[in-house]
Amino acid sequence: MGNDTDTAIQSIEWRADHVRIIDQTYLPGREVYSDIRDVGRMWEAIKKLRIRGAPAIGIAAAYGFYLGIKELPENSFDSFWVEVERVADYLESARPTAINLKWALDRLKTTIQAHKEKEISEIKDIVLKTAKTIHDEDKRICKKIGEVGVKLVGGKAKILTHCNTGSLATGQYGTALSVIYHAHDQGKDIHIWVDETRPLLQGARLTSWELMNAEIPMKLITDSTAGSLMRRGEVDMVMVGTDRVAANGDTANKIGTYPLAVLAKENDIPFYVAVPLSTIDMELGNGDNIPIEERDGDEIATFNGSQVAPKKVETYNPAFDITSHQYVTAFITEKGIIEPPFDQNFKKLFED
Amino acid sequence: MGNDTDTAIQSIEWRADHVRIIDQTYLPGREVYSDIRDVGRMWEAIKKLRIRGAPAIGIAAAYGFYLGIKELPENSFDSFWVEVERVADYLESARPTAINLKWALDRLKTTIQAHKEKEISEIKDIVLKTAKTIHDEDKRICKKIGEVGVKLVGGKAKILTHCNTGSLATGQYGTALSVIYHAHDQGKDIHIWVDETRPLLQGARLTSWELMNAEIPMKLITDSTAGSLMRRGEVDMVMVGTDRVAANGDTANKIGTYPLAVLAKENDIPFYVAVPLSTIDMELGNGDNIPIEERDGDEIATFNGSQVAPKKVETYNPAFDITSHQYVTAFITEKGIIEPPFDQNFKKLFED
Repeated sequence: MGNDTDTAIQSIEWRADHVRIIDQTYLPGREVYSDIRDVGRMWEAIKKLRIRGAPAIGIAAAYGFYLGIKELPENSFDSFWVEVERVADYLESARPTAINLKWALDRLKTTIQAHKEKEISEIKDIVLKTAKTIHDEDKRICKKIGEVGVKLVGGKAKILTHCNTGSLATGQYGTALSVIYHAHDQGKDIHIWVDETRPLLQGARLTSWELMNAEIPMKLITDSTAGSLMRRGEVDMVMVGTDRVAANGDTANKIGTYPLAVLAKENDIPFYVAVPLSTIDMELGNGDNIPIEERDGDEIATFNGSQVAPKKVETYNPAFDITSHQYVTAFITEKGIIEPPFDQNFKKLFED
Repeated sequence: MGNDTDTAIQSIEWRADHVRIIDQTYLPGREVYSDIRDVGRMWEAIKKLRIRGAPAIGIAAAYGFYLGIKELPENSFDSFWVEVERVADYLESARPTAINLKWALDRLKTTIQAHKEKEISEIKDIVLKTAKTIHDEDKRICKKIGEVGVKLVGGKAKILTHCNTGSLATGQYGTALSVIYHAHDQGKDIHIWVDETRPLLQGARLTSWELMNAEIPMKLITDSTAGSLMRRGEVDMVMVGTDRVAANGDTANKIGTYPLAVLAKENDIPFYVAVPLSTIDMELGNGDNIPIEERDGDEIATFNGSQVAPKKVETYNPAFDITSHQYVTAFITEKGIIEPPFDQNFKKLFED
C-alpha cells in the first residue's frame, strides 16, 4: 500500500471546475465516467447510487455543495447564507442513513460561518479547498484503518465481507476492504467470501470487481450462504463497514449485516466494523433513532428492467439494518481498535 | 380447504399416458405446461427445477420411473430388474438432497420385488398405480399438515417463510404453505413475509404468485431483510419446509434456512418445519451426512442470461444448508406436532 497505484480506482475526482465519478451503476460491465457540473446532478448521482459508500458520499456531497454555491450572488452574507442552507438541506435529502453526508455538509457550513467576515468569493474558494481536504483526509484515514485493522488478521485467514467498502466506497482503499488490501499487501494468505448483497448486488458487482482487479483470492456467494459457511468453520472473521454508528456502538449498515453479526456470535467468530471517526454519530444514544432509508420495491421485484416477481407484488425494501453493539467484537478506526464498552471508549476517543 | 378448487394449481398431473407439469422456470411471467413422455425428459425437468419441491420431486420421480420402465422388454424378471435399478439410479442422480426422490424410488422398487412372481406387464401397471397412489397420498398428507399446523397460528399472525413450499412444491396445498392456506381459510388475520430466496428466487417468483392468487396478504423481501424484521418484533413465527430431516431433527432445507433459524432463536420467535413423514430419513443419525447439492455458479454470477458479476468470478453455490435440531421449535407432520427431543419422538412416530 506504498503508493496510490496499488488501488488505481478513483471513485471520485475533482477536475479544475467539475467532479468526475465512475458511475457505479454500470460496473462491472462497463467503466463509465460521468462529469458532474451542478448540484442537481450530484443529488441524482447520490440518490441513484452512481456514487455510494458512506465516506464517498461525504466527499461527493462536499464537492456537490461547492457546485451548488459557486454561482450564488456575492452581495450580502445573509442572503448567501440562506442559499447555503438550502443547498445543504437539498443534498442531505438524497440519502438519510449515511451520517457522512450530514457530517461533510455541517463541516462546510461551520467553515463558512468561521469566515463570514471575508468576501463571498473568497469564502467560495475556502469551501472548495475544504472539500478537497475532506477528500484527502478520507484517503489518509482509510489507509490508516487498513494499517490498524491488518493486525487483527492472522497469517492465514478466511474473511467474510458484505456490500462494498473498498476504493469505490471511499476516497481510496476503503474501510473494511482497506484492511483486506493491507493484509494481501503484507503477503498474508487470505481468502475472501463476498456476499452478493441483495438487492443492488454491490458485492457481486463492485467488491468482486475490486478484489479480482487486486488479484485477491475470493468467492462470490449469496447472502444466505454466509451462515452455513460460518457453521462449518469456513469463516475466521467477518469484516464490514458502516453508514452510521451510534454513541453506544449500535451500527447501521447495509441490510443483511445484522444477520451476519448474529450468526458470527452464534458461531464464536469475531465481527469487526471498520469505521472512520466521522461515521460515528455521538449525538445518537443508540441505533433505534438512526433513520433507515426505504427504497423502491422495484429493486426486488424487477431485475435489469424485467419483471421477476408477479406484477403489483407488495414489497418491503429497507436499505439498512441496525446491529446492536453487543454483537460487535471491535471497531477498527483510524485511531486504533476500539473494544467494548463502546459508549465509554468512544467518549474517550472523542475527548482525546 | 373444502375442495380442490381452493388451490387450483396442479404442479403435476398424470394424463392417460404421460405427465403434464407446469414448468416452474417460466413462472410468474408465463404459465407454460410441459408434457413429459420419457424418463430422460423427467430427469431434465427435475435437474433444471422445472418441477421442484421435495414432495413434488418424489411424485415426479415416481411417474418418471414408470415412463422409464413401461417400454422395457417383458421376458425375464432378472433382466427387467437390472433395467429397473438403472432407471432408478438415473432418476436419483438428478438431485441428491431431497430424500423424497429416493423414498419414492425405493418404494416402487420394493413394490416390484413384492410382485416379482407376476407378469412383467402386470408389474408395470402396478408401478403406475403406485405412482398415482404416491401422488394422492401426498395431497392428503399436505392437507393434513395444514390442518395440524393451523393450530399453531394465532388469530392474528405475521409469518415469515422461505423458498416455495406450496401447491407448486407438492401434490397440492404444500407443506408450510398448507398451514398458511388453512389459516387464511379459517379467517385468521395473517400477513406473510416472503423471502425472495436467492439465487433462483423461488420466493419472489413462486410463493408470491401462489399467495397473490389466493389473496393472502404478503410482502416480498430480500433474504437479508428477515433478520431486521425479527429484531423489530415484526415476525410472530417462521414456517418452512424441508428436503430431508435426519433422525435427530437436523434439517436440510433451501440455503438461507439456517440463518433464519438462528435469528429466530436469538429473537425468541418459534421456528417451525412442516414435513411429511416421507421426508424424515431415519437412517441418518444427524444432518452432517445429508448430501448437499452444489449448483452452477452462473446462478449467482448471471441473471436472465446477462452477466452481473465480473466474468470468470469464482463462486460457491450450495442449494441447501443444515439447521441443527436445537433451533427447531417443532415439526409439523401429518401425524401431529412433534416437539423435542426429536430423536426419541421421531422413533415413537415411526413405531406407531
